[in-house]
Amino acid sequence: MDILVLHGPNLNLLGVREPGVYGSETLGDINGRLVALGAELGVVVGHFQSNSEGALIDRIHAAREEGVRGLLINPGGLTHTSIALRDAVAGVGLPAVEVHLSNIHAREEFRHHSYLAPVVLGQICGFGADSYLLALRAILLKLK
Amino acid sequence: MDILVLHGPNLNLLGVREPGVYGSETLGDINGRLVALGAELGVVVGHFQSNSEGALIDRIHAAREEGVRGLLINPGGLTHTSIALRDAVAGVGLPAVEVHLSNIHAREEFRHHSYLAPVVLGQICGFGADSYLLALRAILLKLK
Amino acid sequence: MDILVLHGPNLNLLGVREPGVYGSETLGDINGRLVALGAELGVVVGHFQSNSEGALIDRIHAAREEGVRGLLINPGGLTHTSIALRDAVAGVGLPAVEVHLSNIHAREEFRHHSYLAPVVLGQICGFGADSYLLALRAILLKLK
Amino acid sequence: MDILVLHGPNLNLLGVREPGVYGSETLGDINGRLVALGAELGVVVGHFQSNSEGALIDRIHAAREEGVRGLLINPGGLTHTSIALRDAVAGVGLPAVEVHLSNIHAREEFRHHSYLAPVVLGQICGFGADSYLLALRAILLKLK
Amino acid sequence: MDILVLHGPNLNLLGVREPGVYGSETLGDINGRLVALGAELGVVVGHFQSNSEGALIDRIHAAREEGVRGLLINPGGLTHTSIALRDAVAGVGLPAVEVHLSNIHAREEFRHHSYLAPVVLGQICGFGADSYLLALRAILLKLK
Amino acid sequence: MDILVLHGPNLNLLGVREPGVYGSETLGDINGRLVALGAELGVVVGHFQSNSEGALIDRIHAAREEGVRGLLINPGGLTHTSIALRDAVAGVGLPAVEVHLSNIHAREEFRHHSYLAPVVLGQICGFGADSYLLALRAILLKLK
Amino acid sequence: MDILVLHGPNLNLLGVREPGVYGSETLGDINGRLVALGAELGVVVGHFQSNSEGALIDRIHAAREEGVRGLLINPGGLTHTSIALRDAVAGVGLPAVEVHLSNIHAREEFRHHSYLAPVVLGQICGFGADSYLLALRAILLKLK
Amino acid sequence: MDILVLHGPNLNLLGVREPGVYGSETLGDINGRLVALGAELGVVVGHFQSNSEGALIDRIHAAREEGVRGLLINPGGLTHTSIALRDAVAGVGLPAVEVHLSNIHAREEFRHHSYLAPVVLGQICGFGADSYLLALRAILLKLK
Amino acid sequence: MDILVLHGPNLNLLGVREPGVYGSETLGDINGRLVALGAELGVVVGHFQSNSEGALIDRIHAAREEGVRGLLINPGGLTHTSIALRDAVAGVGLPAVEVHLSNIHAREEFRHHSYLAPVVLGQICGFGADSYLLALRAILLKLK
Amino acid sequence: MDILVLHGPNLNLLGVREPGVYGSETLGDINGRLVALGAELGVVVGHFQSNSEGALIDRIHAAREEGVRGLLINPGGLTHTSIALRDAVAGVGLPAVEVHLSNIHAREEFRHHSYLAPVVLGQICGFGADSYLLALRAILLKLK
Amino acid sequence: MDILVLHGPNLNLLGVREPGVYGSETLGDINGRLVALGAELGVVVGHFQSNSEGALIDRIHAAREEGVRGLLINPGGLTHTSIALRDAVAGVGLPAVEVHLSNIHAREEFRHHSYLAPVVLGQICGFGADSYLLALRAILLKLK
Amino acid sequence: MDILVLHGPNLNLLGVREPGVYGSETLGDINGRLVALGAELGVVVGHFQSNSEGALIDRIHAAREEGVRGLLINPGGLTHTSIALRDAVAGVGLPAVEVHLSNIHAREEFRHHSYLAPVVLGQICGFGADSYLLALRAILLKLK
Repeated sequence: MDILVLHGPNLNLLGVREPGVYGSETLGDINGRLVALGAELGVVVGHFQSNSEGALIDRIHAAREEGVRGLLINPGGLTHTSIALRDAVAGVGLPAVEVHLSNIHAREEFRHHSYLAPVVLGQICGFGADSYLLALRAILLKLK
Repeated sequence: MDILVLHGPNLNLLGVREPGVYGSETLGDINGRLVALGAELGVVVGHFQSNSEGALIDRIHAAREEGVRGLLINPGGLTHTSIALRDAVAGVGLPAVEVHLSNIHAREEFRHHSYLAPVVLGQICGFGADSYLLALRAILLKLK
Repeated sequence: MDILVLHGPNLNLLGVREPGVYGSETLGDINGRLVALGAELGVVVGHFQSNSEGALIDRIHAAREEGVRGLLINPGGLTHTSIALRDAVAGVGLPAVEVHLSNIHAREEFRHHSYLAPVVLGQICGFGADSYLLALRAILLKLK
Repeated sequence: MDILVLHGPNLNLLGVREPGVYGSETLGDINGRLVALGAELGVVVGHFQSNSEGALIDRIHAAREEGVRGLLINPGGLTHTSIALRDAVAGVGLPAVEVHLSNIHAREEFRHHSYLAPVVLGQICGFGADSYLLALRAILLKLK
Repeated sequence: MDILVLHGPNLNLLGVREPGVYGSETLGDINGRLVALGAELGVVVGHFQSNSEGALIDRIHAAREEGVRGLLINPGGLTHTSIALRDAVAGVGLPAVEVHLSNIHAREEFRHHSYLAPVVLGQICGFGADSYLLALRAILLKLK
Repeated sequence: MDILVLHGPNLNLLGVREPGVYGSETLGDINGRLVALGAELGVVVGHFQSNSEGALIDRIHAAREEGVRGLLINPGGLTHTSIALRDAVAGVGLPAVEVHLSNIHAREEFRHHSYLAPVVLGQICGFGADSYLLALRAILLKLK
Repeated sequence: MDILVLHGPNLNLLGVREPGVYGSETLGDINGRLVALGAELGVVVGHFQSNSEGALIDRIHAAREEGVRGLLINPGGLTHTSIALRDAVAGVGLPAVEVHLSNIHAREEFRHHSYLAPVVLGQICGFGADSYLLALRAILLKLK
Repeated sequence: MDILVLHGPNLNLLGVREPGVYGSETLGDINGRLVALGAELGVVVGHFQSNSEGALIDRIHAAREEGVRGLLINPGGLTHTSIALRDAVAGVGLPAVEVHLSNIHAREEFRHHSYLAPVVLGQICGFGADSYLLALRAILLKLK
Repeated sequence: MDILVLHGPNLNLLGVREPGVYGSETLGDINGRLVALGAELGVVVGHFQSNSEGALIDRIHAAREEGVRGLLINPGGLTHTSIALRDAVAGVGLPAVEVHLSNIHAREEFRHHSYLAPVVLGQICGFGADSYLLALRAILLKLK
Repeated sequence: MDILVLHGPNLNLLGVREPGVYGSETLGDINGRLVALGAELGVVVGHFQSNSEGALIDRIHAAREEGVRGLLINPGGLTHTSIALRDAVAGVGLPAVEVHLSNIHAREEFRHHSYLAPVVLGQICGFGADSYLLALRAILLKLK
Repeated sequence: MDILVLHGPNLNLLGVREPGVYGSETLGDINGRLVALGAELGVVVGHFQSNSEGALIDRIHAAREEGVRGLLINPGGLTHTSIALRDAVAGVGLPAVEVHLSNIHAREEFRHHSYLAPVVLGQICGFGADSYLLALRAILLKLK
Repeated sequence: MDILVLHGPNLNLLGVREPGVYGSETLGDINGRLVALGAELGVVVGHFQSNSEGALIDRIHAAREEGVRGLLINPGGLTHTSIALRDAVAGVGLPAVEVHLSNIHAREEFRHHSYLAPVVLGQICGFGADSYLLALRAILLKLK
């Protein structure tokens, strides 16, 4: 695996939860598109979803040992509350891109601040499932 | 199951933890009283306790698929810190009531704000175990 | 009279004012339901509405001298601005429950904080007229 | 009566209180000018002053029942502290204009925020007694 | 009358309300001591208590017309919330002293700020009923 | 020219931009109505629109040299961000009125504060194009 | 022209200014890559740089009249200070993407907040010149 | 010595420093009046002035060992900045009264908060030199 | 087991994660040194690491039932965000010491505040692995 | 040219605008004194005034290409609002000194913070036109 | 002397001041224990107490010239208010440990922040006199 | 003596303390340069350094009695914490200039605010020892 895509809490509800905000694609659809684009660009893309902060941190730690080269992370609601997740990303030292389906800066005030953002390469938000695909392109440009 | 009662972190300590604040009933006692009142009012009440944010979110997601009609939630300390839990409740779209044993507005400043409150029908706090029973009545009035 | 229900400013408009937020029952309807539930539960329920902070405080003081055993209070807009009302409730030393028709925690930021809340037994909000009926049950459980 | 002009606390002192700030006209003078301009523009103008928040709210409620078509309100010091007054104006659903003799934005910091402003058509401040006359023109333009 | 003593909301409860905080003297006792000390110092002392902000403002306005020479004011809970009361005192232009039975600076954070304080001669707090007597001496020293 | 009307950034879009908020009249229409009312009231009204803070400041400076007697200013988004514009108005020493089409106090929090307001005579907002016409009347009353 | 790329203040210094932060490509290089990628994707890309807020607003207004279909905007330092620029983008109603070379969320606190973000589709930051190219792909996905 | 009066930084300038704010009496005059009033009321009054926080703390510690029964303290500018002085007063456990010549609540914002106030009996401010004499009466009433 | 040492999220990365900040010892090394020092001081030391808040809370609950006499806790990133963890420690009522490898008060602002600190005996931070050994000595001094 | 002096918005009004605050010299007078002192100290001094942020930024960019060795900048009201101006100074990498005629720290709260200050050598304020002359000496001492 | 222990304001009251909070040992007792432990660990320990910020700073400066190798500092109330003390410690460049008898993070809000903490190795608080002894061990571990 | 230069806490360390920030000149060197420049400009310059706030205040008071005509003050860390020092300068009524070696606005946030600044003529910071020499020129220009 070259790139690991991490989906945080509630992203398994995609296609169900507030489709007006998040679009109607399921998480499976998105993962499929990511794998396909990865293949097209010559990399193997893996993915992992969990509603548990701890499980996400465990997975990030494991990625480092597996030789994963980069991370795409949509931490969902943990974006704004989890210092532990931030420390995990900083701790493993892998390049990462923060992804959001919705434009978090246009939503409730408490969604504007990200604990993760200062330890990643960059942030892409607001383009629905395409945010992930753009982030895949972005990280590959940096890994070249 | 018609109504699922969710108990967050540390509520398994009930009867042990600061009885001056939370009363001496155990969580088993409260669940028993909820099941009995449910039976009296014609509904089946289930319950779930976990100290893990992720497990609570998983359980909320499952409730939607099981056809649960409403949620009673006492998120304990997660009330004030978990946006992911809020997103889970908003995401499944089930009516919910927020419950607290103690009067959270009369305790430390950081317990006054609830991330969950804006996505539930209402909040009942301060009546010890009776807060749950009142909440059960409240949600059934709304489901009628 | 056993229980006095106090309605603050603008609650006389019920059924008129923003029915989408507050429901279509009139204050008379609600008082009727409270008296009836009181009778069913074996207590005499009285009620008082005023748009004046001073009149509400006077009524609270009088309640103590009349031997009223508990108070239900919906202070309306005074919830968020009146320290004098809070002091009146704390001063007479009667058990009290704070009631709101709407879920104040889901409305404007300035409606989230209650000066009254720290001196009452608990708060019930978000269930329309049923908030009052639940509060009546709640206070009677505490007075037993 | 077509238009009701409401004067809040201390406006009865006009001509007495800090004339450097508020001008030397009395409230009677201002009411006279408002009635005259109303007659000129074809409407009947009434007026009411009280130092009591509750009495002002009562008067607003009554206005709705009397068929008053619009309100001009100078809430005085209540501008910055009364949510109940705001709720009264929003509750009766009458178009209203907020008026201030002085330029409240040029005075103490605590006079810059108005609880009333978000529920009225607009705000006119800083022109002394002329603020009322301009507000009368403003509301009539909207009622046409 | 030379000096008018104004007692705000809930001060009629004195001797009843939280005696640990406010002492056991009644308001009648305090007024009696004030009248007596006034007589000793050669001035006539009057007094007025109300739970209504509006009634207090009306009384302040009247004091000016009656030729009262100074005011002692304990605004109770209105200290921290009433700009209208402040404007009344500033508006009549009479010298005034702010009085509190308890040491407001040693109580809840929200009792530390006084809207009245910037428009009076000074503030005396923390000495129970003696706060009033000291304030009477204070204002007479200023009126000499 | 007696009165100069200054229109800040984006006001040239009037009739195009968010008509639900700002109405459908164009800026040309408004200027026309202002010139006509000015003629009726015996003054010559000029006008100037720019999207550039610097150009607006230059125009204000020039107005002083041209003998303009008063300014009406709608600074658009600069209202809340430009200290330089405020300093220009204060610097030339001409009487000015601040104008807004919409009720800025009912919009986003960041639109409630005006840097300009403390250095003008008064503020009129919320009446669409009529805000300008009312402001013209207001300033002429002050210039008499 | 299909897509207009707007570069705000100081972006003309690219390749000169703090290359450690912003990379060594010049603005001409970036524009060249954008035009080329546009050609590859079947759209005509134009570009405009100015150090003046007013000139940028003028250009945005003009874009609407020229039939431009979407905007890419890197407002530079204006991101955090210009409400007028935000109003321009919202006013013309064209879909837009906010672009930053650096990860603004990892820099000084005052660079974390964007006035523009709530009125655009999304934000892409942190990938140097590639941020623009990703944004071009992003907006074309939305325009399809 | 029964009562020790402590004067903080700059009070030795009295009669010199901003007489418009602080009056024209010198510190020697005030000390003389305090000694005289003490004699009249049957107590021995001592006094100490220093511009050094450390010296003031040393003097407070010594007072406890000398059997002083109460303290009057005007901490000057240290009122708002010295936690060490507060700890000294709380540490020796002597009853104390906080005194200010000027009405600190009517001056700059940073003079409104007192670190000392929560550990003294009460605060008297705004009466010039008379503040000290009133405080002497106040503490003797408490020591009776 | 007498003393349980709890290691929060990311501490399993020790020796890997930012060695400049946290030192090069692994968690196994530290646990070994703690067990050895415990043996020297006559107590049995256990340890537990998890990246999951829920698992840490479960372990704390279990400690109470196992008769553990005291806790050493390094909550990692949860220090600053977890009220649930704080409630767990307060709930079981065991004496505890908060430990940090780095000097949290010298790092990012958001690491200065600890939710745990108010419910433990004390905090030791900044001495790398030695922080744990000092904490072991500290708690044993308190348990004597 | 060795040293470029930049004057921001409204400084062209010097001698006209609030002379009590800014003195009566015109900008021409100040520029003359600067040129003369420059000559005396052996450097050529140029100057530029604009009311437009964009024009100031353009001029700073140009200075770098002209081989200017240092900048003196009085950004006027832009001091407190312009991040773009700060970025321009930081971007060109020329040593700069911030100058203010008035003591900005003694004026309104919003004039105390300078966005420019952290990227210049130092700040000189409060000495009227002499602030510029002192700044010229200061920068020449640094360029030696 | 190898290690200098500095005790700030009021620590000379130890054994007297609030023993419930600080324990009953005197400062002499603590110094004795520190000297003894130092001897046991092979270092000479000196100590100094002052209620004066200036004297503490002087002593820190002198320590550097005497060849002291490390500092233990309990700044008492100066912890939260003295930037000068912080600058002294940073200025002499000696390794230092911050010590507090009580758990400052469990006391009043204003005691949670330490100006000293960011310039010392670490902080130990909450263990009464043992905090000093633990700190002595801590600094010796770092000096090895 | 005409001009007294006051150096606050830790400035005696100059040449020792953080030379990267403060330069390598000693305080003696600076005083020597000040005396020399004073002689050149026809005034006698004195100087005083202390680490004690109280001693600095005493010295300022004495300066007034000695007929000193102006003060240069570098209060070091007291700049940001001492209201007493500010009151001393305001109290003696001598013209003063605030001096800082480093650019305090480019350092930690808590060094940006000066309590002294509002009561002095102006502030000069960021030019190392030259800040003092520029300040001497500045005050002499004002004393002319």
